[in-house]
Amino acid sequence: MLKLKHIPVQSFGENIAYIHKNCAMYKVDDLKKATRLEIHKGSKTIYAFLQIVAEDGVLADDEIGLNDEAFAALNMSEGTEVHVSLAAPSASTKALHRKIAGEVLTSGEYAAIIGDIAAGRYSKADIAAFLVACSSSMSSTELVSFTEALVTKKVLHWDEKSMVVDQHCLGGVPADKTDLVVLAITAAYGLPMAKPSIRSLTSCAGVADTMGVLTEVDYNAAKFQKFVRANNGAIINYDAMEETKVNHLLHDVRSQLGINQNELVIASILAMMISAGVSHLVLDIPVGANARVRSANEAIRIRKQVEYVGDMLGISVDAVVTDGSEPVGSGIGAVLEARDVLKILQNVAGAPIDLREKSLFLAGRVLEFDP
Amino acid sequence: MLKLKHIPVQSFGENIAYIHKNCAMYKVDDLKKATRLEIHKGSKTIYAFLQIVAEDGVLADDEIGLNDEAFAALNMSEGTEVHVSLAAPSASTKALHRKIAGEVLTSGEYAAIIGDIAAGRYSKADIAAFLVACSSSMSSTELVSFTEALVTKKVLHWDEKSMVVDQHCLGGVPADKTDLVVLAITAAYGLPMAKPSIRSLTSCAGVADTMGVLTEVDYNAAKFQKFVRANNGAIINYDAMEETKVNHLLHDVRSQLGINQNELVIASILAMMISAGVSHLVLDIPVGANARVRSANEAIRIRKQVEYVGDMLGISVDAVVTDGSEPVGSGIGAVLEARDVLKILQNVAGAPIDLREKSLFLAGRVLEFDP
Repeated sequence: MLKLKHIPVQSFGENIAYIHKNCAMYKVDDLKKATRLEIHKGSKTIYAFLQIVAEDGVLADDEIGLNDEAFAALNMSEGTEVHVSLAAPSASTKALHRKIAGEVLTSGEYAAIIGDIAAGRYSKADIAAFLVACSSSMSSTELVSFTEALVTKKVLHWDEKSMVVDQHCLGGVPADKTDLVVLAITAAYGLPMAKPSIRSLTSCAGVADTMGVLTEVDYNAAKFQKFVRANNGAIINYDAMEETKVNHLLHDVRSQLGINQNELVIASILAMMISAGVSHLVLDIPVGANARVRSANEAIRIRKQVEYVGDMLGISVDAVVTDGSEPVGSGIGAVLEARDVLKILQNVAGAPIDLREKSLFLAGRVLEFDP
Repeated sequence: MLKLKHIPVQSFGENIAYIHKNCAMYKVDDLKKATRLEIHKGSKTIYAFLQIVAEDGVLADDEIGLNDEAFAALNMSEGTEVHVSLAAPSASTKALHRKIAGEVLTSGEYAAIIGDIAAGRYSKADIAAFLVACSSSMSSTELVSFTEALVTKKVLHWDEKSMVVDQHCLGGVPADKTDLVVLAITAAYGLPMAKPSIRSLTSCAGVADTMGVLTEVDYNAAKFQKFVRANNGAIINYDAMEETKVNHLLHDVRSQLGINQNELVIASILAMMISAGVSHLVLDIPVGANARVRSANEAIRIRKQVEYVGDMLGISVDAVVTDGSEPVGSGIGAVLEARDVLKILQNVAGAPIDLREKSLFLAGRVLEFDP
């Protein structure tokens, strides 16, 4: 048993445990490699990566230090006596090795890997290896399994509605904020749109950023449902929700490493939609020299993949290939984009024609879902 | 300028810099992701990954803390005022992204990536991504570039010898310590054998472990050359040498992630041999259900690859496929294996026949190099 101590260090999402070099209970002399510890007390267990404190002062030899992330995850007070052991190899390690070797994984294996990532058993290096392996080969069936594993345990249910729609852009084109106009149109028509969105990824402002100029976007799922029911539509910043932690973590590693394979993007978007209980999705795939998708052939391949995965997981996807050769609207950045949207909705002179036309086109595709 | 402080934490080879949340010079409020810092003073620059200290006590707001690895790398005293800036994207980042996307890299790009890894610019996650991407696709030409990039700057030169041989096993079969017997034979014959070896990887004792039972193996390159010249042969633990740091780092990440693709193993072995100045190598490829290589087809592919890379980089490789279906010798573990070797060399009764026969066979192949 070691006494818990909080070491106030933030490590960007990685749990770190510190042990004194002359630790009273655990010999750490001959460690050469990063090691995963299991720290438990009663029924509570967390995982953390070991670092060794070589001098006195920071930590006594009967203490275990936890950084901010690990201390918060364990959620016990300093001085608590905790059990510490080497973490057993996780159930998904073998699956990870198989994927790295280029093999095809089952849906159970994807679920095990994503589950272990959620439990904090994977280091950033493990996650990076997993994502690169997936991006180098993933069958359609695997893509379904991967997406399904990313869907949160608490999927939103919209019992009273037969249809909850959304319109989402695959990204890569600045200022393409059709979402806000389409939402207003479908809401006015009477189709409820539940729009999970995120802050900026590929351009300088994400949908959550632009909507955030006009109103609050960081709230919880219960409020989201209330707003959608009251107004036939709402936009929520999904980043802020604890339930979607794994999806964010994967996204962070992807963006740091420049891993942009379409399969991973599709899985991330569809998992977010399915978690939000969206039943019908119009996915806008802009094609252009500076967009995420560079050629019509690639767009067609993505359309097939995304519609297939949607079919398998019970969400109707209508993937629309659009012109992504230029920015849409007359300003780039959250405030200017919000102004463009308001101008269109208020039907004032000087509203950007291209954003208006594209929004009308996509809104039409969304309304076509209504039988 | 921030004042240097040593934070006595060992992080298994990763440089970490700690900055106070309310740092006087650098605003760290809105950081969401791991960030690479450049710490410089005069002409000396090191790279470190940022972590944030959230409370007082550990670090003042005009200090920058460096963990053991980073503090040793910078090698300046506490209190020194150092410049800190965000590290610019490294030259090899684009190459890394291209490799992750499945593209073919040039030899310049491999050199840039390995150079940046050596300079500490890559996180473990970056290295993992690079290795998985390489293991999923690497052409023969790329394998040559990758191997060449791993060769240390200080290659050993054996000016007075026209030929320096070695015999190395691809691994995976316990107790296969033919190396020590072959070395004795070639030394007696008069062919110098310079044998870089490493501690246990795939079995419970590496060649360096077994030789370490009999004599010292951790010494520097100058002593290694002296011993080889004096005795016509010597075994050195290459792990212990600073020059081969990158190769070890890659190996550590590989072994933690279970990345075992043959190309990466070949590059690691050949780079070690070339760095040691070996001109002629017999590479033993044992094939068996529990060996690294499982089938004759795979062995033949490896033989072609390794002989091609050797040709390109100026080392003659004779790859020999052997029976790896069972352990060789009569004991497993460094001490028992050393006893087996001594029994054979002393020609006593009870010396293991299989190890003796295999050693004689391989020694024969090595002696055939002699024109």
